[in-house]
Amino acid sequence: MEKKRTVFFVSDRTGITAEALGRSLISQFNAEGFRQVTLPFIANLDKAKEAVARINASGIEDGIRPIVFSTIVDDAVRSIIQGSEALYLDFFEAFIGPLERELGMKSSHTAGRAHASADNAAYIQRIEAVNFALANDDGISTKRYPEADVILVGVSRSGKTPTCLYLALQFGIFAANYPLTEDDLNHGELPAVLLPYSAKLYGLTIEPTRLQQIRHHRRPDSRYASSDQVRYEVRQAEDIYRVMGVPFMNTTHPSIEEIATTILHQTGIQRRF
Amino acid sequence: MEKKRTVFFVSDRTGITAEALGRSLISQFNAEGFRQVTLPFIANLDKAKEAVARINASGIEDGIRPIVFSTIVDDAVRSIIQGSEALYLDFFEAFIGPLERELGMKSSHTAGRAHASADNAAYIQRIEAVNFALANDDGISTKRYPEADVILVGVSRSGKTPTCLYLALQFGIFAANYPLTEDDLNHGELPAVLLPYSAKLYGLTIEPTRLQQIRHHRRPDSRYASSDQVRYEVRQAEDIYRVMGVPFMNTTHPSIEEIATTILHQTGIQRRF
Repeated sequence: MEKKRTVFFVSDRTGITAEALGRSLISQFNAEGFRQVTLPFIANLDKAKEAVARINASGIEDGIRPIVFSTIVDDAVRSIIQGSEALYLDFFEAFIGPLERELGMKSSHTAGRAHASADNAAYIQRIEAVNFALANDDGISTKRYPEADVILVGVSRSGKTPTCLYLALQFGIFAANYPLTEDDLNHGELPAVLLPYSAKLYGLTIEPTRLQQIRHHRRPDSRYASSDQVRYEVRQAEDIYRVMGVPFMNTTHPSIEEIATTILHQTGIQRRF
Repeated sequence: MEKKRTVFFVSDRTGITAEALGRSLISQFNAEGFRQVTLPFIANLDKAKEAVARINASGIEDGIRPIVFSTIVDDAVRSIIQGSEALYLDFFEAFIGPLERELGMKSSHTAGRAHASADNAAYIQRIEAVNFALANDDGISTKRYPEADVILVGVSRSGKTPTCLYLALQFGIFAANYPLTEDDLNHGELPAVLLPYSAKLYGLTIEPTRLQQIRHHRRPDSRYASSDQVRYEVRQAEDIYRVMGVPFMNTTHPSIEEIATTILHQTGIQRRF
């Protein structure tokens, strides 16, 4: 049997960045072959020593040395982690030297300065955007549409809600969403309430087979999840987008991050932080 | 006047990882001195050439060469970007060599394999977690608490809702939240409905002055936002956590990412992807 290696993501903060980049790198190999462990908040020497003990123990247990991806800013903490019996790859250290030379100054080597989101104004902006998404989800209300940066439209389960929440949390964008109902789809028209905001609309569409699968998961064997119904709704929705000139994208394959980024990119909406 | 440099985050996907790491690096210098531009979806040679034109133009306009942070997987695309008149730092390229040597195999050099979230089961899990957070926000319902991974408690505006949504989107965790009402706070007790789930509770607290600021933003000059009221609520909530043995954290300074990661870390809840 092949030995299974452990990959550690070590960070003085959340480890989310180290995870994202580390996972992207190991996915270039056989990702199934790795056990993944995140060690967040390794921000002092004691925690660093505990982390090293854990890394070394897993190397012994696995019978093969671990891989450590790290984003440690503090030199003293980093040098302890660096002493572990592992392949040590630091995303921070590799680039700070070239940047110092380019900018002609020393870096501050201060952990956590990147977290502008902890800043008061940005925090409030972010919370307001989340509240906006919640208050304007699924066509609950259209009163605040003048404040919206974007209004997503689409059939039920095409990905509107998670995309709005992601736009709010990641970019501070005010995103509302409005479901196209059977009535709208039968008429082949946008609901009248959306017409004043046509410049803010962005449509989502999805492959019928995928939509059927998602709806089936929610309401097994319903008309709502039937092949005919799903095909009809998707076709009608796409026709409406085309006739009304609403830009739209297919959400079948991309992740929520990719859907949100594509919308930003195509509409030119400015992120708020 | 000092010249202002442009920093580019270039990616064949969303650019979110390149941004996170690049911002963390430049925050070690004087971040105010940089203009930031993200170029996502640079996934073919034509887009790469357009990106280079844009990077070079900004260098001419700024009068100082730009910095490019990139996470480009494809060698041909990367080598075009690398030819721009900029300090080029690639988060991918720097580590793929050491990994290939360690693992004794060639990488697949395939863009986008990291996005396991595009995978069907994980996608449905993520959507279900978001739906769970929405259906169990703010004490709307307690029926599905047996399914919850965690139930956040806290006074109004202590950060419960965005934290639940982030836990759902980032980690696929089923997170509910329940507000401590004035009644609960006056009695100094957890509401009876929560008692069967005491092992799943996690408390949020916040500095009174910060809470006052957030509440004032929402309802200016209300009793709700008054200094006395806010101080009283926070003190009572913390007393309840202590008496009932509910683990809790202060949300005043950390970002939503840090709050969510801390909860995972302290409770040992397993992420679902």
